[in-house]
Amino acid sequence: MASNGANQPLLSGLVDPTPQTNNKDAPKRRRFRRCKSAPLADVLDPEIKGKDSIPSSGSIFGKPHPNFMKVAVYLSMYLGGGTICFYSVRNQIEGTKTDAILDSVYFCIVTMTTVGYGDLVPNSVLSKLLACGFVFSGMGLVGFILSKFADYLAEKQEFLLVTALHKHQNVGTTNILKDIESNKARYKCIVMLINLVVHIVAGTIFLFVVEKMNLIDAFYCVCSTMTTLGYGDRSFSTTGGRVFAVFWILTSTVSLGQFFLYVAEVNTEKRQKALVKWVLTRRMTNVDLEAADIDDDGVVSAAEFVIYKLKEMGKISQDDVSQIMEEFEDLDVDQSGTLSPSDIILAQDSQTKS
Amino acid sequence: MASNGANQPLLSGLVDPTPQTNNKDAPKRRRFRRCKSAPLADVLDPEIKGKDSIPSSGSIFGKPHPNFMKVAVYLSMYLGGGTICFYSVRNQIEGTKTDAILDSVYFCIVTMTTVGYGDLVPNSVLSKLLACGFVFSGMGLVGFILSKFADYLAEKQEFLLVTALHKHQNVGTTNILKDIESNKARYKCIVMLINLVVHIVAGTIFLFVVEKMNLIDAFYCVCSTMTTLGYGDRSFSTTGGRVFAVFWILTSTVSLGQFFLYVAEVNTEKRQKALVKWVLTRRMTNVDLEAADIDDDGVVSAAEFVIYKLKEMGKISQDDVSQIMEEFEDLDVDQSGTLSPSDIILAQDSQTKS
Repeated sequence: MASNGANQPLLSGLVDPTPQTNNKDAPKRRRFRRCKSAPLADVLDPEIKGKDSIPSSGSIFGKPHPNFMKVAVYLSMYLGGGTICFYSVRNQIEGTKTDAILDSVYFCIVTMTTVGYGDLVPNSVLSKLLACGFVFSGMGLVGFILSKFADYLAEKQEFLLVTALHKHQNVGTTNILKDIESNKARYKCIVMLINLVVHIVAGTIFLFVVEKMNLIDAFYCVCSTMTTLGYGDRSFSTTGGRVFAVFWILTSTVSLGQFFLYVAEVNTEKRQKALVKWVLTRRMTNVDLEAADIDDDGVVSAAEFVIYKLKEMGKISQDDVSQIMEEFEDLDVDQSGTLSPSDIILAQDSQTKS
Repeated sequence: MASNGANQPLLSGLVDPTPQTNNKDAPKRRRFRRCKSAPLADVLDPEIKGKDSIPSSGSIFGKPHPNFMKVAVYLSMYLGGGTICFYSVRNQIEGTKTDAILDSVYFCIVTMTTVGYGDLVPNSVLSKLLACGFVFSGMGLVGFILSKFADYLAEKQEFLLVTALHKHQNVGTTNILKDIESNKARYKCIVMLINLVVHIVAGTIFLFVVEKMNLIDAFYCVCSTMTTLGYGDRSFSTTGGRVFAVFWILTSTVSLGQFFLYVAEVNTEKRQKALVKWVLTRRMTNVDLEAADIDDDGVVSAAEFVIYKLKEMGKISQDDVSQIMEEFEDLDVDQSGTLSPSDIILAQDSQTKS
């Protein structure tokens, strides 16, 4: 095959005129660095530009801004509705009671997080069915909080943690962000572990001081609560205890759930990193070259190589590629195998004609 | 720019000689269909081939075969260890008792799934700390079962479901697989919903018949158990009931957890599909063309287009691309901007020399 240099004349003048030596120390990393500010010849009607423009990252492509409002609204709707419901059937709930409204909120939280101590239990058909309804919707809501809210908070805390860790070294924000990026899941895990320890210590001390439990019982009640086990032999039975419980139960159960999610993420990240390394260091053979050559011109361009490796890494599937290739062939009006400004003009013409 | 046809001579003979009309009905989809069996000229030492060959899909790239053995071993280790531990401290656990060994297994399951009825509660320091240890490791194990086992079972059931749905239509396995592929999460959701209904009905009838509860109480106990709420005012108190509970609690809590995971997956899939559609139908502008042009040759090849769209869809990041590009530039020994068999030979030579 003599085609390995066939594309060369086309590329000359556009790529750096680096001498083609096999010297490994030559600065060849530079070749694809492009001047993004230099636009292609703009031959299109300015009216067309601007339409269908790329939305700013963050709105669709970036990580969506977590909807605090949504979480807050759903949570207050749930707790508000739950409190009203359980307050109105308060005579059909039996157990250790303190203040009627506080007990309703407390029962709501204990049900929603599926702790279910059993220190307050519904004892009529209506209150039992209400509890059934609230526990299912509560599980969904906790899942929603885990997916939207907890991750966002952890990311904020992560930044603080990494900044603190790098305090002694004189590194800039860019380096901190880079460090976070490459160890995202690991740092989040550490953040959540710190959160958990704070919750455990605070809960144990509170139960020891306010609910007058001994230290073992306090720790046991903390574990039983944050795992949502809630045997119910130890629970919050004083007014002060229940006020604390309303906040502490929700945040501690969410923290533990999120911690388990992050542990799973660390494992996935590790496997993914190992796979990427394996794919990148694997030697290319001629069979690979042929398989990677999408446009069948006998050589593998940088973009074709990237797609081939992405497929090997499992980040994209052949389906993804095929779907986009169909779109490409529709766009390639002059069927040159490449898209150029003239294709866009032709496509524009055929659209205005039809 | 006159470069839109510049690559044409290189491609002629390799692509179909379809006349270059703007006729939309012309069969232009065919251009990139390649004969995969035709290998590139193989100029390499046959010894090199075979080394570093692509592992068969399924081993690394495909969905890993779920490790039944692992789940089975972990689960029996957990239950075995738990039963021995709780059996040996059976005098430090108080509550409704039946058979000593059965109660230990039952307590283990109720703790592991975080149902925590409280019909059996530890009442010594040792048994309380044991319970704390077992609930944390149990949560991890349930997460492991959810990630490995439940999804695999759901996929098996999914195939049965879709086959049954298509029974009247005379479609082949390929079509069924295609249907499953494009509605994966939706069908899994349905499968899990059916699972849940079966669990609810079976549990309610069992509690009604064996534990002599009324129907409302039976349903209430079922809901309270599968959500892991476990108030504990209603639970399995007979020997037969606890034997049933050991199996039913584990499968029903896992089913509900998996159901919530699938609901989240359906939502993600929906959003992803909408995004893909938006990206694919969005009109290309010259700015896009310039941004997509990785090798800066003034035109966008099919592969470059695919990478640009994949980035827009959020399936890959610039980081992924950069990492692979670095590897590409290392491999492109003759710095032609493309990989060809000669690059592989050169790379091979420099390796043997050094």
